[in-house]
Amino acid sequence: MNKVLGIDIGGTSIKVGMFSVDGVLEAVTKIPTGEIVSEAAFAVVTEGLKGLLAENGAKPADVIAIGLDVPGPVDDEGKVGMLANIELDPEGLQAAIKHTFPNANLAFVNDANAAALGELWQGTAKGANSFVLVAIGTGVGGGVVCNGKLISGAFGAGGEIGHITVNRDETASCGCGRKGCLEQYASATGIVRGYKQACKQLGTTPVNLDGPTDTLSVFNAYRAGDEAAQTAISQMCDCLGYALAQISAVVDPQIYLIGGGVGGGFKLYADELRAAFRKYCLAPCVATRILPASLGNDAAMYGCAYQALLERGE
Amino acid sequence: MNKVLGIDIGGTSIKVGMFSVDGVLEAVTKIPTGEIVSEAAFAVVTEGLKGLLAENGAKPADVIAIGLDVPGPVDDEGKVGMLANIELDPEGLQAAIKHTFPNANLAFVNDANAAALGELWQGTAKGANSFVLVAIGTGVGGGVVCNGKLISGAFGAGGEIGHITVNRDETASCGCGRKGCLEQYASATGIVRGYKQACKQLGTTPVNLDGPTDTLSVFNAYRAGDEAAQTAISQMCDCLGYALAQISAVVDPQIYLIGGGVGGGFKLYADELRAAFRKYCLAPCVATRILPASLGNDAAMYGCAYQALLERGE
Repeated sequence: MNKVLGIDIGGTSIKVGMFSVDGVLEAVTKIPTGEIVSEAAFAVVTEGLKGLLAENGAKPADVIAIGLDVPGPVDDEGKVGMLANIELDPEGLQAAIKHTFPNANLAFVNDANAAALGELWQGTAKGANSFVLVAIGTGVGGGVVCNGKLISGAFGAGGEIGHITVNRDETASCGCGRKGCLEQYASATGIVRGYKQACKQLGTTPVNLDGPTDTLSVFNAYRAGDEAAQTAISQMCDCLGYALAQISAVVDPQIYLIGGGVGGGFKLYADELRAAFRKYCLAPCVATRILPASLGNDAAMYGCAYQALLERGE
Repeated sequence: MNKVLGIDIGGTSIKVGMFSVDGVLEAVTKIPTGEIVSEAAFAVVTEGLKGLLAENGAKPADVIAIGLDVPGPVDDEGKVGMLANIELDPEGLQAAIKHTFPNANLAFVNDANAAALGELWQGTAKGANSFVLVAIGTGVGGGVVCNGKLISGAFGAGGEIGHITVNRDETASCGCGRKGCLEQYASATGIVRGYKQACKQLGTTPVNLDGPTDTLSVFNAYRAGDEAAQTAISQMCDCLGYALAQISAVVDPQIYLIGGGVGGGFKLYADELRAAFRKYCLAPCVATRILPASLGNDAAMYGCAYQALLERGE
């Protein structure tokens, strides 16, 4: 039976899903890795993959496609760019996997792009012709699908919607070196920062926060009527709605999907986000739907598997 | 011999090109029309098309595809939206043409989108996987091509890049009802307005202007060292470069093509525009090329023909 693997590469471990070619997730495993830059580390990965297959009655020769999602840019040709947050030698890992799985097509996919493809394959966006996934976590990533296909970009910057400028007057720098990016206001980090600033301005005491990305506590404070939390979430919705309106003037998707960790709080801010989008968008786009993503943390694992499978058919 | 027609619909006349299926423009004619809302007017169009074919040794049955470009929104399904500037009954015209050319696939395409497709078929973008055409005329239109395909948009707003917000502090309204759109600064109208404002601020006398879109005179003044013209063109380049940088964070194209009437002056402002884009874009995108379009006023006629031909093969 033909199988497809989706490999979600993180800083300290990888998560692997074994799929049928129809997109049914049949088994999942986690493989602790650390840096993936040596033959020994590549072997840990390939042995882990073989183990997952063996446990589930499959052989390496059954695997026809393997996707790997990475937290960094991947261009239209599938080439991986600079990876800031993990230690990975993509070419080395690719060679090792290719050696173990000779029948498999391999594809690297940017993590937010992979999440979009996952939603297209088996999530909220199944069958959609066009949509944009907004992945809100520590940063803000995105995946743009038009005419049923992912737009990776000529330089791997397709869907880098966290770096749409929303405030030209900002003086603080974004991680990208520019100023006033969406990510500075609408990421988990941005929401928590906005909350603290609002507390300062209002002269109120912030609730206890478990680190710089603890939006859960901010959302709970919002539910309890905390004014500063309302201010921070309004700012997040305003910035995100404004950025989505800019995206609509470029690709005009049918749907925006809100995913990532902060996507989990979607119900809390959905109305305010939709209102902000409608305030800023071109008139024909007011009917664009803004919905929650549905695959949670598995989305990228699904999506990179799907991309590897799609490329095989080309 | 199979033929393809491209019909460029204007306010007082239509321009028709007869193409080979390989994209060679074999003959062109202009048909005076006026409003295209009655059976009599539809007959003027179909008779004109038949005349063009007869003069060039072809029959209606030879025509396998007919594209019509219109100055207004056309959605992903090919449905024409509100047309503000021309009197046209698209369904009526479509039925009349279909009756006369039973073998032809018909397609409506937005004019700027059609221009992009024209450049993809036979212009500067031939063979490109991704590019964005910026059509600068009275307004600023655009056509976005990714993965080799046009992005019309779910509501026909794909490529409406003239309505990317570049100045959130603007108090004057754009034609779309919003404020601070690219079109307010980088269109022919915007450049001339910017020139007049700069003259006022500098206390200088504007050169003679032949109406509100006479960028030619502003460009000539620029060449002669007119400081206000330099200011207006710098503002246009800054706004356009900023908007293109936002587009790159969404679709990250290989190439930007500058077309439309103002595109003719490309050499004059190319360096300044490229510098503005590099100032605002994400680091990986600095190598994006910004080039002049090559088909001039024929681009849309080529492109709508191409779209009708492409859809036939699907």
